[in-house]
Amino acid sequence: MFEAQMQDGKIFKAIIEAIKDLVQDCNLDCSEEEVAIQSMDSAHVSLVAVRLSAGGFSNYRCDRPNSLGINTANMSKILKMLGKDDSITFKAEDESPDNLTMLFEGGKTTIADFDLKLMDIEAEQLGIPDTPYQCTVQMNADEFQRIVRDLQVLGDTCTISCGKEGIRFSVTGNIGNGNILIRSNDEQNEKDRVTITMDEPVELNFALRYLNFFTKATPLSSSVIISMSPDVPVVVEYPIEDFGHIKFYLAPKIEED
Amino acid sequence: MFEAQMQDGKIFKAIIEAIKDLVQDCNLDCSEEEVAIQSMDSAHVSLVAVRLSAGGFSNYRCDRPNSLGINTANMSKILKMLGKDDSITFKAEDESPDNLTMLFEGGKTTIADFDLKLMDIEAEQLGIPDTPYQCTVQMNADEFQRIVRDLQVLGDTCTISCGKEGIRFSVTGNIGNGNILIRSNDEQNEKDRVTITMDEPVELNFALRYLNFFTKATPLSSSVIISMSPDVPVVVEYPIEDFGHIKFYLAPKIEED
Amino acid sequence: MFEAQMQDGKIFKAIIEAIKDLVQDCNLDCSEEEVAIQSMDSAHVSLVAVRLSAGGFSNYRCDRPNSLGINTANMSKILKMLGKDDSITFKAEDESPDNLTMLFEGGKTTIADFDLKLMDIEAEQLGIPDTPYQCTVQMNADEFQRIVRDLQVLGDTCTISCGKEGIRFSVTGNIGNGNILIRSNDEQNEKDRVTITMDEPVELNFALRYLNFFTKATPLSSSVIISMSPDVPVVVEYPIEDFGHIKFYLAPKIEED
Repeated sequence: MFEAQMQDGKIFKAIIEAIKDLVQDCNLDCSEEEVAIQSMDSAHVSLVAVRLSAGGFSNYRCDRPNSLGINTANMSKILKMLGKDDSITFKAEDESPDNLTMLFEGGKTTIADFDLKLMDIEAEQLGIPDTPYQCTVQMNADEFQRIVRDLQVLGDTCTISCGKEGIRFSVTGNIGNGNILIRSNDEQNEKDRVTITMDEPVELNFALRYLNFFTKATPLSSSVIISMSPDVPVVVEYPIEDFGHIKFYLAPKIEED
Repeated sequence: MFEAQMQDGKIFKAIIEAIKDLVQDCNLDCSEEEVAIQSMDSAHVSLVAVRLSAGGFSNYRCDRPNSLGINTANMSKILKMLGKDDSITFKAEDESPDNLTMLFEGGKTTIADFDLKLMDIEAEQLGIPDTPYQCTVQMNADEFQRIVRDLQVLGDTCTISCGKEGIRFSVTGNIGNGNILIRSNDEQNEKDRVTITMDEPVELNFALRYLNFFTKATPLSSSVIISMSPDVPVVVEYPIEDFGHIKFYLAPKIEED
Repeated sequence: MFEAQMQDGKIFKAIIEAIKDLVQDCNLDCSEEEVAIQSMDSAHVSLVAVRLSAGGFSNYRCDRPNSLGINTANMSKILKMLGKDDSITFKAEDESPDNLTMLFEGGKTTIADFDLKLMDIEAEQLGIPDTPYQCTVQMNADEFQRIVRDLQVLGDTCTISCGKEGIRFSVTGNIGNGNILIRSNDEQNEKDRVTITMDEPVELNFALRYLNFFTKATPLSSSVIISMSPDVPVVVEYPIEDFGHIKFYLAPKIEED
């Protein structure tokens, strides 16, 4: 038996909204420790990894590890029915369950239950090495979203340079070019603080289209953590309070000379 | 001469918005007692009936009964120009009038008048029997709207079951199935109270598409009253304070075995 | 060297938004006294004229007059990135500059700079005679916008009549006709005051489509000033505080008998 209750159901809804444009089908990998999702996007360009630790749930029981294959668009349809203060209780049988049952409970008068059909998804678990990064920037998640959305009007590729003075986003395109520099600072207000931890400056190019997909996770976190090293994928991480995180990985574009 | 002033013009605007997707052309049947609308939808599946009693208007004069045939889409275009605090004064000649004149008056500085061309509409008045129903549920109109809108993502047909514990909306479809149960209660706050009056439980199936059309009337009322008996059309009624009501009738779907 | 700083960058953004649907390419004519724009719309039906006097900028330097040819759609794309409290600093070289550089500065931590490619635009400066008008109406800009937007549903042509009692907008169309009368008054609240200065009544017909384009300038001003004389173009003026104005000119339609 798998049974887990998330008090603030909005979190799960936000996770599905964050990944559904990238990932069509994926497994909820349930174990004693956590519910995890790991999946390449449909074009096999980027990777998304979600971790929801068992401790974040108000009730959690997972008798044996199980992979529940869901279609994210269908899951999203059902989650449209979640009331804004509803909790979600997930339930599934241990032996090749056909359905994932979800209970939405909010006010005293309304109770809703849904069965989402499950599917078998072949998924190879990728080992993601836990390497240190040359630069790590923590900044306001809304501002990161605004920047990568706005810069799209200038071009497809964004150069992210991280140095002592701050993190710079640059785009060159047909109508002109633009640079947005975010300076590191130690604002009192944590939301507006920009923290840069670096060994050496790094400059890498990325497809804005994918960075934009990643910012769909903005509602999950006030801050975003961007980690870069030369020649390896950037990690764009949104911490999820009490639960864990959602992380996106994207390989840099190689400049052709 | 027909002349009637509605202090809160928004009410008439909301009525036209509520019916215009269902009904293309209809008569405003004006008499000494009321302005009434009765019309099947264009597919002849459901029936809408509006009653605005003369007493709700601040001035009301109807020298002889008259049917003013309007196109609801054109009426809606003109009502777009209604200011949010405007009154509406309706005027029409007694003898086969060509136009319905409407005056919109709000602030001291602006006065707007419109002539809407009238048309001849053949309409047979249906006698609707005033029968008692086995189950009558009064519930929050917003919640009813949310439920029938949300359940559409799961399927086309909704089973409504009314019993002692409450009213249950169920849908079964390709991606899974869902049930939403609203329990009867006696909340202090009238808006959230759910009152169930029943002789015997009733369970009927309805096309969600039509229930959704009906909920366009939600802005007119805080509560909706749903009345059901086996094998007869459900009545979905939105009371309109001081004026009367808008009622929608829809025959149940017959389950094929 | 041309260099000018506008403290409230939103003003320039609103100007570009106001003209970009009418005018595709135009020159920013920079001189010691002002930045000016003058351009016919692409269909050569109406004329737009903007004046931003040097005194409105917080820094202003223009060593020699220069015409900076911009594409308004591209300028608008870059201005999408303007933060809501950002200032804009414009910079361009004296000798046939390739780019207009814009700096957006707001909070302490973010600084953005953009280069917009410039183009050569052949533009003949039209001399607009500064004639007196028979009628001049000053009214609330939002209300003027609402009226010309709403009346579009009735027809294409609006008759504007200005007389002692006020200004009247009338449209006749297939579904009926409408009149909106704004009475002159001396409201305390300047925003709601309607002032009419007239020698003789004037009645002229205009294409609502163009009046609607003009009302894109509504965010720039609480009032609009409409000046009319028989047989000459109407002037629809939005004053821009501290800077000057944006004016639109539109020739009346000649009624065919």
